[in-house]
Amino acid sequence: MTLPAIAANRLADLQAFERAILEKQPQIEAWFRAQWRAHTPPFYGSVDIRNSGYKMASIDMNLFPGGFNNLNPQFLPLAAAAAQDAVERACETARSVLLIPENHTRNTFYLQNVYALSQILRHAGFEVRLGSLNPEITAATELETALGDTIVLEPVQRTRERLHLADGFSPCLVLLNNDLSGGVPEILQGLGQVVLPPLHGGWITRRKTDHFAAYNGVAAEFAALVGIDEWTVNPYFEKISGLDFQEREGEEQLAAAVERLLAKIQAKYDEKGISDAPFVIVKADAGTYGMGVMSVKSADEVRSLNRKNRNKMAKVKEGLAVTEVIVQEGIYTYETLHGAVAEPVVYMMDRFVVGGFFRVHEGRGTDENLNASGMRFVPLQGNIATSGAGDDDPQALAQSKRAFEQWESLGLPQTHRTDECESNRLYVYGVMARLSLLAASIELEQSAAPAGAA
Amino acid sequence: MTLPAIAANRLADLQAFERAILEKQPQIEAWFRAQWRAHTPPFYGSVDIRNSGYKMASIDMNLFPGGFNNLNPQFLPLAAAAAQDAVERACETARSVLLIPENHTRNTFYLQNVYALSQILRHAGFEVRLGSLNPEITAATELETALGDTIVLEPVQRTRERLHLADGFSPCLVLLNNDLSGGVPEILQGLGQVVLPPLHGGWITRRKTDHFAAYNGVAAEFAALVGIDEWTVNPYFEKISGLDFQEREGEEQLAAAVERLLAKIQAKYDEKGISDAPFVIVKADAGTYGMGVMSVKSADEVRSLNRKNRNKMAKVKEGLAVTEVIVQEGIYTYETLHGAVAEPVVYMMDRFVVGGFFRVHEGRGTDENLNASGMRFVPLQGNIATSGAGDDDPQALAQSKRAFEQWESLGLPQTHRTDECESNRLYVYGVMARLSLLAASIELEQSAAPAGAA
Repeated sequence: MTLPAIAANRLADLQAFERAILEKQPQIEAWFRAQWRAHTPPFYGSVDIRNSGYKMASIDMNLFPGGFNNLNPQFLPLAAAAAQDAVERACETARSVLLIPENHTRNTFYLQNVYALSQILRHAGFEVRLGSLNPEITAATELETALGDTIVLEPVQRTRERLHLADGFSPCLVLLNNDLSGGVPEILQGLGQVVLPPLHGGWITRRKTDHFAAYNGVAAEFAALVGIDEWTVNPYFEKISGLDFQEREGEEQLAAAVERLLAKIQAKYDEKGISDAPFVIVKADAGTYGMGVMSVKSADEVRSLNRKNRNKMAKVKEGLAVTEVIVQEGIYTYETLHGAVAEPVVYMMDRFVVGGFFRVHEGRGTDENLNASGMRFVPLQGNIATSGAGDDDPQALAQSKRAFEQWESLGLPQTHRTDECESNRLYVYGVMARLSLLAASIELEQSAAPAGAA
Repeated sequence: MTLPAIAANRLADLQAFERAILEKQPQIEAWFRAQWRAHTPPFYGSVDIRNSGYKMASIDMNLFPGGFNNLNPQFLPLAAAAAQDAVERACETARSVLLIPENHTRNTFYLQNVYALSQILRHAGFEVRLGSLNPEITAATELETALGDTIVLEPVQRTRERLHLADGFSPCLVLLNNDLSGGVPEILQGLGQVVLPPLHGGWITRRKTDHFAAYNGVAAEFAALVGIDEWTVNPYFEKISGLDFQEREGEEQLAAAVERLLAKIQAKYDEKGISDAPFVIVKADAGTYGMGVMSVKSADEVRSLNRKNRNKMAKVKEGLAVTEVIVQEGIYTYETLHGAVAEPVVYMMDRFVVGGFFRVHEGRGTDENLNASGMRFVPLQGNIATSGAGDDDPQALAQSKRAFEQWESLGLPQTHRTDECESNRLYVYGVMARLSLLAASIELEQSAAPAGAA
């Protein structure tokens, strides 16, 4: 694998950051172990990382990751071992898992992800069957995945407090690979089985700002441990509520927040001698798949949104209206692969990093969101397919401009090396991703309490 | 990797055996998980497998494996994850490990193993330092390994009930990579720290026959689970005590045992329609490194041992006299690589298979012991070195005739495939190895009780 190149004038910053982390590797791992004794890791997760050299952080944490098909098969043994821990933690005597995928049936990349995830669980020694919530699935249905594998969707049924399939298959663990953007269907409510991720982790109730509030605490503790400025690993953010983009309600509050954040970033840039122009990302506080996202460099950009862009911001997946946003400090991406901006995506199962890849986008700038609406993953190599998701439009898939580069190693730190080294860079990404995973674990604990266990 | 070829007339047997196991994969894994809840897995272990097609089993289980340098580096992430479990199980808050290697200083392949094992633990996030029992190590000593890495041996010291190094480094976990063949040194006795493997796992107290007695129970349960004849995975054995090979004491008892076992095997061969000539292996009941081992096809061979062969059997490593032997059913090796007999060796860390390789020996027959005294591992490829161990004679290393082939995958079962498939074969080896690992865990529990916790 080619490691992305970092811009020449950012290399020294990145190397200093990497060294600071590598020098504390045993302390960092001991700290993570202690954290995982206090907090239950999410079943799985994926994290988007941004890296400007002088700053590196998670900017998004997905509790319902697609794209397991994107991971290097060489990491499968580790993923399977991690899955054993994850399943046993949920249900000690589990022998099988009922996996609930998204309702997509024509997005063969997503189906490939379902196949890959099932295979990880099978390799871990669990029987896996797929229970679909899709009303079109009324009988066991064979579907072909992007790479020609076969999966069988079966209609999920419910009897009293248990989900099951037609023949009575009813394991104690129900694993969601469906982010519940459209709300929690009645059939999933009040089950006696363990449901993971928990229902309150779905986007109908989850908020990005809750995640980053939990992340604040994690980042502060981590920064103190490593002896770095917390800002280096933690983007500023604010939450703005009561918005209606189409009616232009709350526009001024949003613009004011953008202004405040830009000023805070500028102050930090001045302190650090960074000459970049600050920018912020405005994102739906609930939602995924890069919908409802914009990159902004001045408050006026928020005030002068045209109808088309207001419409784009107004709704996310499943038509959910956007009334709350997170305004988040933007982190420049100074990493490029093959001349194109590259963003690391890290996958985790239980408390372990089990793979990753770089999103690569040729048409995008360093301050734009690569996970934007309408964008699709496309295979970089013939034998690797990736998750598109979002909808089932094969046309859109075909028009994709997205590429990615799969990790070929897993970031085992080479602490004695001080030069540029793939293992060390990937290790540092993995640390950043696990900070966000830990924040998600704390976030889920906190959100479980007031709402009542789902 | 090339999978060893199985003799044509044994292929059908092997395929039937593999299919029986693959069909029960989820049940087998659930059973292992349940076993590991009841029994603590050894910290690590390696297992020698024999495979005749009609029979496959562990014939030796090493609690102090060398040769971690032989494993494919691609399995390191899994080994590191498994090591986290292993260390945490021993000492929940451990941040560092004191590793006690064998006393060898000139066997650079063994030193490479120590380096590889340290690296696994470091990748898992633990600080690792090497405490040597070797009286020649009186100050911190840098040594170069076979591949040019550096390790530092430090003299181990003791203050009251704690081992430590000169600067006070004194972790709660002391990990032995020294099999205590010469007895348990006083400095290790009655420590307040956790010592793993436990002292009673050393060859001064451990007996192969205790291992295989525990294995009997494991194999019976496993065979019932899978629905196969227990004999398929369990070699017959007997224990003979009170021997003195040099004085020819006990020779008749040994010959009688050989006769009984050969008759039992012949009966089973007749039942199964197997035309092979039965043979047994006579091995020192305590000991390792292939010393004190002979392959026997008739009781008369035991009666007519010449002085040279009696001397060979009389002593094992560290000059320990052999008074007890295990007489074990021999399993033919019908697997060949590059035309030479090939024996699988499987490495485990905690409850996970973390790698393996095939011992390949061009000068040996299908019924001979490939781990015989005087034999050495040699690299098959330039970049892979292997553990010789046994003594420190570089001459002997150079004269080595041993080769091996490293596993390139980790045996994730492809349950839908019925043809010859590397993953499935390696998975089945891994199952056999884990049966022996489980037996070791039960053996250590049982031997801990009467002797008092070490």
